[in-house]
Amino acid sequence: MQHFDSDYMEGAHPLILERLVAHNMVKTTGYGCDEICAEARKKILAACGNPDSEVHFLVGGTQTNATIIKALLRPHEGVIAAATGHIAVHESGAIEATGHKVLTLPQHDGKLRAEEIDAYIAHFYADESFEHMVFPAMVYISQPTEYGTIYSLSELESIATICRKWQIPLFMDGARLGYGLASAEADFSLEDIARLCDVFYIGGTKVGAIFGEAVVMRKGLVPRFFTLIKQQGALLAKGWILGLQFDTLFSDGLYLKIARHAICEATRLRKGLEAKGYESYSLSPTNQIFLRLTPQQLTKVKAVTTFTEWDRLPNGDTVIRLATSWATRSEDVDELIEML
Amino acid sequence: MQHFDSDYMEGAHPLILERLVAHNMVKTTGYGCDEICAEARKKILAACGNPDSEVHFLVGGTQTNATIIKALLRPHEGVIAAATGHIAVHESGAIEATGHKVLTLPQHDGKLRAEEIDAYIAHFYADESFEHMVFPAMVYISQPTEYGTIYSLSELESIATICRKWQIPLFMDGARLGYGLASAEADFSLEDIARLCDVFYIGGTKVGAIFGEAVVMRKGLVPRFFTLIKQQGALLAKGWILGLQFDTLFSDGLYLKIARHAICEATRLRKGLEAKGYESYSLSPTNQIFLRLTPQQLTKVKAVTTFTEWDRLPNGDTVIRLATSWATRSEDVDELIEML
Amino acid sequence: MQHFDSDYMEGAHPLILERLVAHNMVKTTGYGCDEICAEARKKILAACGNPDSEVHFLVGGTQTNATIIKALLRPHEGVIAAATGHIAVHESGAIEATGHKVLTLPQHDGKLRAEEIDAYIAHFYADESFEHMVFPAMVYISQPTEYGTIYSLSELESIATICRKWQIPLFMDGARLGYGLASAEADFSLEDIARLCDVFYIGGTKVGAIFGEAVVMRKGLVPRFFTLIKQQGALLAKGWILGLQFDTLFSDGLYLKIARHAICEATRLRKGLEAKGYESYSLSPTNQIFLRLTPQQLTKVKAVTTFTEWDRLPNGDTVIRLATSWATRSEDVDELIEML
Amino acid sequence: MQHFDSDYMEGAHPLILERLVAHNMVKTTGYGCDEICAEARKKILAACGNPDSEVHFLVGGTQTNATIIKALLRPHEGVIAAATGHIAVHESGAIEATGHKVLTLPQHDGKLRAEEIDAYIAHFYADESFEHMVFPAMVYISQPTEYGTIYSLSELESIATICRKWQIPLFMDGARLGYGLASAEADFSLEDIARLCDVFYIGGTKVGAIFGEAVVMRKGLVPRFFTLIKQQGALLAKGWILGLQFDTLFSDGLYLKIARHAICEATRLRKGLEAKGYESYSLSPTNQIFLRLTPQQLTKVKAVTTFTEWDRLPNGDTVIRLATSWATRSEDVDELIEML
Repeated sequence: MQHFDSDYMEGAHPLILERLVAHNMVKTTGYGCDEICAEARKKILAACGNPDSEVHFLVGGTQTNATIIKALLRPHEGVIAAATGHIAVHESGAIEATGHKVLTLPQHDGKLRAEEIDAYIAHFYADESFEHMVFPAMVYISQPTEYGTIYSLSELESIATICRKWQIPLFMDGARLGYGLASAEADFSLEDIARLCDVFYIGGTKVGAIFGEAVVMRKGLVPRFFTLIKQQGALLAKGWILGLQFDTLFSDGLYLKIARHAICEATRLRKGLEAKGYESYSLSPTNQIFLRLTPQQLTKVKAVTTFTEWDRLPNGDTVIRLATSWATRSEDVDELIEML
Repeated sequence: MQHFDSDYMEGAHPLILERLVAHNMVKTTGYGCDEICAEARKKILAACGNPDSEVHFLVGGTQTNATIIKALLRPHEGVIAAATGHIAVHESGAIEATGHKVLTLPQHDGKLRAEEIDAYIAHFYADESFEHMVFPAMVYISQPTEYGTIYSLSELESIATICRKWQIPLFMDGARLGYGLASAEADFSLEDIARLCDVFYIGGTKVGAIFGEAVVMRKGLVPRFFTLIKQQGALLAKGWILGLQFDTLFSDGLYLKIARHAICEATRLRKGLEAKGYESYSLSPTNQIFLRLTPQQLTKVKAVTTFTEWDRLPNGDTVIRLATSWATRSEDVDELIEML
Repeated sequence: MQHFDSDYMEGAHPLILERLVAHNMVKTTGYGCDEICAEARKKILAACGNPDSEVHFLVGGTQTNATIIKALLRPHEGVIAAATGHIAVHESGAIEATGHKVLTLPQHDGKLRAEEIDAYIAHFYADESFEHMVFPAMVYISQPTEYGTIYSLSELESIATICRKWQIPLFMDGARLGYGLASAEADFSLEDIARLCDVFYIGGTKVGAIFGEAVVMRKGLVPRFFTLIKQQGALLAKGWILGLQFDTLFSDGLYLKIARHAICEATRLRKGLEAKGYESYSLSPTNQIFLRLTPQQLTKVKAVTTFTEWDRLPNGDTVIRLATSWATRSEDVDELIEML
Repeated sequence: MQHFDSDYMEGAHPLILERLVAHNMVKTTGYGCDEICAEARKKILAACGNPDSEVHFLVGGTQTNATIIKALLRPHEGVIAAATGHIAVHESGAIEATGHKVLTLPQHDGKLRAEEIDAYIAHFYADESFEHMVFPAMVYISQPTEYGTIYSLSELESIATICRKWQIPLFMDGARLGYGLASAEADFSLEDIARLCDVFYIGGTKVGAIFGEAVVMRKGLVPRFFTLIKQQGALLAKGWILGLQFDTLFSDGLYLKIARHAICEATRLRKGLEAKGYESYSLSPTNQIFLRLTPQQLTKVKAVTTFTEWDRLPNGDTVIRLATSWATRSEDVDELIEML
């Protein structure tokens, strides 16, 4: 039986565990105010080509999204997201729990369109009664999206331009950012992202770390962000463990290297399955593969691997997701293709 | 120049002011714990045919919606509403400010459909990851809707049946309830509403009162609702003024009588304008009239009356709303029709 | 039987009702965007000697406190208040419901002391772990206090100086402001208050209006305050009724004139009761009288008037409050003194 | 230079890391729905002698406190805590951020007293205006307290009795529970705690784990607690790492064994310092030592170890905290005593 449910089924890259074991008994200052975190911050900023930004380490995606959005919005403001955005669907209302509305726009392969954001905001301010409504005051995008697709550089630039036009921050959820950067279709770099977004994060949990997300934000964007992290319950006591992981991932290009492996295996898997007559549902160039299965196919797939059921279609077909990761073994991919 | 912007442009029905003046200097206990409120509650419950319910008086619609929804939901739960529902659009995120998501479904002439609510909830619980999502735990409907349309008795019964099936409360925003009850197309009574809804309110602000909404709820539905009203800033110190108004409106059938007047004038106005070639946009049988105007018509209408601009259509046409009320003078309607 | 429970037992000053009746059927724009409100704002600003401030009208005290505090604080910040401050005790957690902690300091006759505020903030920033705590970011005072006492001009100036030193706003709850201004001991004017506070409100509910509080705030202190009022459910549809009341109260010095009447009656009442051997508990120079009663005295008082029980003391004595108001009749005061 | 700042300066007990390394590449289901978590739950419940309870794993203390309190309170309710309670002071307002007031009572060596809780609640309900106040609806205690002291069994029983009398849950913050259980003065067992508390947690972060808190709650106390954890951003994707840690700590009595080591070292340290003339400030029988230092002593201590500054006393003395942990080396304690 194979397991392709998600990209967070294994622990951490062995190099991380090695360093964790080595450092384990060294007494270290708490809350991320230590040397290892300082070093990790430096490496991340170097990789971003943006030495003037701030880096903060949090534990998981939902808490990172909620903390950032709460930090940036005033009470009457909301955040624009695609209807399929993680914050709009799968975070149990974590954003609303901080008092803010998620303002959803249609998704196109999981993505927002710059011109639709622009039109929405323009329409908002043209409305006679806009002062009785939630102000669109921030844009949230996921890169890659929840459907495994990626924004191209020109799409990102267009969205950033619209955000600047309306003077609202652009926030990128990069829980799977590594898999976006490593995609064969990616025409953007980490520097581009750091240049275009006011705040974004580099996902560790799904790309080689045990857990951890590294937030990169424009200096001074949020005063007292440390205290906001604490209030949200997102401040890890032993913060150095976050620093240690990102320091490892950002040494010798490890982050991208292991992400490329996942992409490579995902591509092999998709092509292998397509060759066997399985139909792709989303044109994901990243590590998530979406298949549209007939009931018979579904039965067959269920017999050989676990996966995530994504949607049931009106005609009775099922959309499923298979995910590879930095830890996927080539022989498992081979075996899965063969068994199907 | 005429004014048909909304149904809350005048003060209160003269009988209310008369009683207010008469009672003005009588020392009265605060916060609604007085005899006048007690009497008003009795009359409302009699009109509802539901002597075992509770009645609470609040000042305005937004605070009533937020207080009730906050009172009924646990933190992980949200409220289902039509995409055009007042709480979803025009309350500046008051519901989200209490920590809860508004889960929107498509609107059909401003209305939710029972089978779509059912399908949504069924789909929710069928989703593998529903525990990572906001639970649909309450249904919000407006009667009449924001488009002036009304739910028929059978539509209400279907929705109530679905709510009971899933064991979630049905909440009706009755800010304009009088105009719904008085509509020629209404096949439901106040008793029907009291029987079908777990909680609803009878709007005063738009139907004869200076301000005030009377919440009717199943006994014991919300423990300590009084304190929740206070916390939400919705507890009027001189609560007897709310009681006095509703006591007046529910004496001698005044509430329905004045609502019928508004309907009568609205119907005359709509027919008069249709006769002059103006196109109705929504088939509202209540006191709100929606017209679709060409740019030329818009200019003409602007010259003779104020109104509310509702929407701009892709082809350049504008949807406007004209509203009559309990206070609308027949001669003003005549004059408006003539001038157009 | 007399009734001295509170200062909000009657309706509105007759002049207000007169104007309300006169204006009742005039169609008027909603939400405070009308001419009457504009006129009232002008008069209030003239009385404040501060033509560059903003004036906003809300319905009641709790909602005003919550809206202002929520508007001014960022998520990690709290508001300093006396332990007996209304927001700390009697608003059912309305401030916490907006996500903010009330940071209480000891009260002295219901008042905060400037040097204690200063020491608290200095101590806060000196604490090694202050970034793990709620930031003191605003000062709330009531004038008069919940014990009927008043801050002197020099006390106000000291507190304002401390607020400026730490660059945090000073907010005054003036639910009973008229009775403070009219007190024989008041050495401050409305201009002083407008000069010293960043935001404060002039209470109407307890001083001649049916309901209503007029917020005066430094221009630009809170962007989009209108929308925040709406979100908090504190925006009155027929806002002109608020304007009309304040316009009346601020014409011909009515506000102060009726407040002085309450003070006059309160003074007579206190002196009369003291002459009969009743012991004052708080040295209130305003319209609230606090008496310390033995069980026998309590029985006697209960037989002739209603009042508010304030506290039970360890020795079995009871503290009660009697309140006069703009509407108190001299003959009632005479009768009460005589009966006791 | 020594480091006695806190009990969370090292990583995890070596046995934990060993197992983590061994399991690292095994594909495991997310969110704590795995076999390892199931096994850990079983062991914890066995240790609690309470097989009918639920166990949930969260990452850190602040998020655990906020999630539990938010889950248990309705909007108008607050939680009683000692004035020195962690939730009242050092969590940046995390509880208020969920909308609830922390109702503080005086602390006695960091502890609440049952009779004071009882008196507070009795006084609350005796207050005429209690419906305008925050309802005391839950009791929060820390065991050991923030001052290193512990509640005796009889103190716990008294508090539990009061909670049952008023029908409100008792919640124990056990971030350092191991050090309480291992204290020479402890006359209670884990079974006692499980019997007396409605919900409590067993701290891992400070007692041998990298991070992690195991919540034990009465079955059915909180419906949908899983979703509330998710909403609060406290759900770890790779939940099995939490299970693995607690499974290790609850195998072969490891949790208590390592806690006893910390107590042993702390006792040696305190006695050693007292012998050298240093004055203890709190009679902590656990792993935290509080010293009252003169300015000269402070200088001396600063030269040889890092520590946490706790308070500055009016006379210029400083209270500091030194903490030992499961990882403290005996030779470091020896060296510190010698150097001072």
